[in-house]
Amino acid sequence: MSGATAGIVITGTEVLTGRIADRNGPWLTEQLRIQGFEVRHITICRDREEDVLTQLDFMHREGMDLICTTGGLGPTADDMTTALVARFCEREMFLDEPLLERIRAIVRPYAERFGWELSAIDEGAVKQAHVPREAAVLGPAGTAPGLVVTPAEGLNKPTVVVLPGPPGELHSIWTEAIETPEFRRVAATGSVPEEQMLRMIGVPEPDIARTLREFDADQGLGELEVTTCLRGGEMEILISHQPAERARREALVRAFEESYGGAIFSRDGETVDQQVVRLLAGRGLALAESCTGGLLAKRLTDADGASAFFLGAAVVYSNHAKERLLGVSHDLIEEHGAVSAEVAAEMAEGALERFGADFAVSTTGIAGPAGGSEEKPVGTLFVHVAAREGQSNSLHIVLPGRREDVRQRAAMVALHLLRTLLLD
Amino acid sequence: MSGATAGIVITGTEVLTGRIADRNGPWLTEQLRIQGFEVRHITICRDREEDVLTQLDFMHREGMDLICTTGGLGPTADDMTTALVARFCEREMFLDEPLLERIRAIVRPYAERFGWELSAIDEGAVKQAHVPREAAVLGPAGTAPGLVVTPAEGLNKPTVVVLPGPPGELHSIWTEAIETPEFRRVAATGSVPEEQMLRMIGVPEPDIARTLREFDADQGLGELEVTTCLRGGEMEILISHQPAERARREALVRAFEESYGGAIFSRDGETVDQQVVRLLAGRGLALAESCTGGLLAKRLTDADGASAFFLGAAVVYSNHAKERLLGVSHDLIEEHGAVSAEVAAEMAEGALERFGADFAVSTTGIAGPAGGSEEKPVGTLFVHVAAREGQSNSLHIVLPGRREDVRQRAAMVALHLLRTLLLD
Repeated sequence: MSGATAGIVITGTEVLTGRIADRNGPWLTEQLRIQGFEVRHITICRDREEDVLTQLDFMHREGMDLICTTGGLGPTADDMTTALVARFCEREMFLDEPLLERIRAIVRPYAERFGWELSAIDEGAVKQAHVPREAAVLGPAGTAPGLVVTPAEGLNKPTVVVLPGPPGELHSIWTEAIETPEFRRVAATGSVPEEQMLRMIGVPEPDIARTLREFDADQGLGELEVTTCLRGGEMEILISHQPAERARREALVRAFEESYGGAIFSRDGETVDQQVVRLLAGRGLALAESCTGGLLAKRLTDADGASAFFLGAAVVYSNHAKERLLGVSHDLIEEHGAVSAEVAAEMAEGALERFGADFAVSTTGIAGPAGGSEEKPVGTLFVHVAAREGQSNSLHIVLPGRREDVRQRAAMVALHLLRTLLLD
Repeated sequence: MSGATAGIVITGTEVLTGRIADRNGPWLTEQLRIQGFEVRHITICRDREEDVLTQLDFMHREGMDLICTTGGLGPTADDMTTALVARFCEREMFLDEPLLERIRAIVRPYAERFGWELSAIDEGAVKQAHVPREAAVLGPAGTAPGLVVTPAEGLNKPTVVVLPGPPGELHSIWTEAIETPEFRRVAATGSVPEEQMLRMIGVPEPDIARTLREFDADQGLGELEVTTCLRGGEMEILISHQPAERARREALVRAFEESYGGAIFSRDGETVDQQVVRLLAGRGLALAESCTGGLLAKRLTDADGASAFFLGAAVVYSNHAKERLLGVSHDLIEEHGAVSAEVAAEMAEGALERFGADFAVSTTGIAGPAGGSEEKPVGTLFVHVAAREGQSNSLHIVLPGRREDVRQRAAMVALHLLRTLLLD
């Protein structure tokens, strides 16, 4: 792959230990791709001077054209990123008085509203207003400014974009960062690769491996970079390449179509969630969830605009709740058990009626680790999809994996069943 | 910090680009801590030979005693970790025939059940059965074995634990890995640091910074490593140290108690979710969610054993659903609006009654970006907690941030309000 390269250094003990799940690394990787950079390395370290410097140095030695750092811009002593990047770039730090006034102006209303002690707040502001010489100062978003720091005269090191940890602040600082002359100068060397993502269901990974080997032997994979990822029963295939290889990529996609046609549910990376929302076209959807515990509702309401189609969900963990909220018959539960095709059907029909929906999806199953039996082992799932106009689909499957896997896969299976009904 | 050090190399283009959110790095960091290792660096790279080798080499140059790798053990050509670790350790690869038979025995029933083509499957198995000489072979979980690979005779490099990417498989391979003599030999040099985690709400970060500076000036922070993390309105303070520094840690905790007493809701790292479950002590809880869209139900059902207290949730996005499922009065919604203290109260009372619960929590608000007004801007939230026995708590707040922030913070506020009611 030709073009500009970038590395991302994520600082924060809470990120390394997982108390915070990092979303910035992947988000920045995509933003950098759009700007013509290929991210080669992402590294994570604690709030520790030696480790941050080691990782910045690694990026330099590996020839990265650009480094982005996240985190470590707060007012406490463990927030040290700005000073360390200054040291790496051999730039002196100084107190930027106008910046200090801007930070004070941001913080003062909060301090007054919540009754915080002003002198402690001001010490934090003074710390955050110390920046390296010649750096482009961005924001602040929150109270900390972002920065684009260039190396000192004659020093052959990467430019460093210094970003806050909180994702919302990072996103807003980023939009400023990419417009600075300091950033644009480095971005000028990059080129934007093209990509296509296919999504399939029910195809085992060794089959994909063989198709790729056969295509390579037959036509050659050339410069195509193909990565496959099997997740929760869905196979994701990403084909990435420079523009010159487009015809080869199209040939590979044709080879996949020939082998797996019906199993390919997405040819443009669109997820099954996005497809379902699109196919609903504003018609009303309600959910009746038992073992998925609200996960399906959470997934469908992640996107802004969910209120255009999402009427609600009855998360009915207990049998009593199934009866009270959805009108499932007590005798039916007694006869077939809560985890059964019959109860799944009544839950979906009940949701249709109670929510006044056009479509309803129900899930009932055993996520585990407790609750399984010989007849209905852990992983047993019944899904039912019903339409106001009378059509329905149902499925009985035994899913592999632990509790969280079973819950996530159950939601995925339910979405595919709904998609199939919507397509008919 | 004295003791053994470790680095984690996470391989996988899907992880670097964020199509998969990595949970293995943090999980392993904690597991390694328990085994007496301090993780200094986590690195992430694509499925690319040069980059994987570069990162293994980085860990070696930084003096890590142990490296753990995750991912890249599948049957496709982009799965190359085992071969690269073998090269790094200067170990020859060979076909382990008994291992091949074990993998074939695992895969055959699936192939028969789903009608997969056996020869493609077998090519994948043969690839996965190639392992480095002298490696401890673990599992398989799934079809790929894990490994503990020691460097060749006389080569001063770290031992490498090679683990699968899927978390469930990784966890099960790990329990075997730590029992191998190869692992235990390296672990013998480590010591387990002690930690205490405090959680607070409503204390600004600059105040914490000042308390730490004052303690340092007064008594000295010594070898204590203190990291603070402000997330969604909650402040997490982790104090980590070798056993010799225990008295100093206790003094610092006393200093926090003196300054912030009532704001500290957890002294042992327990989350508010865990505290609520403990305080419920098996009594029934129901939820009535609007803007949080099932997120609160999802959080409370994450833990196995949720059925001991969780009766269910009505996720009532539309006004019609609020009326139908919870019996909220149509006139009340007309008069005060769906986002109001009055409607929050009726939602909670409705959930108490419909689910037969001992406690119920409702949320109604405007997550955004659309839907705000001057009187009720984006971020407006009303929470109501009601008990069967008559007590109740309610809160009106305007939360900062974007849609996902508002949803997450709303769930957090609701849990704290419930906790407060349960404590009284």
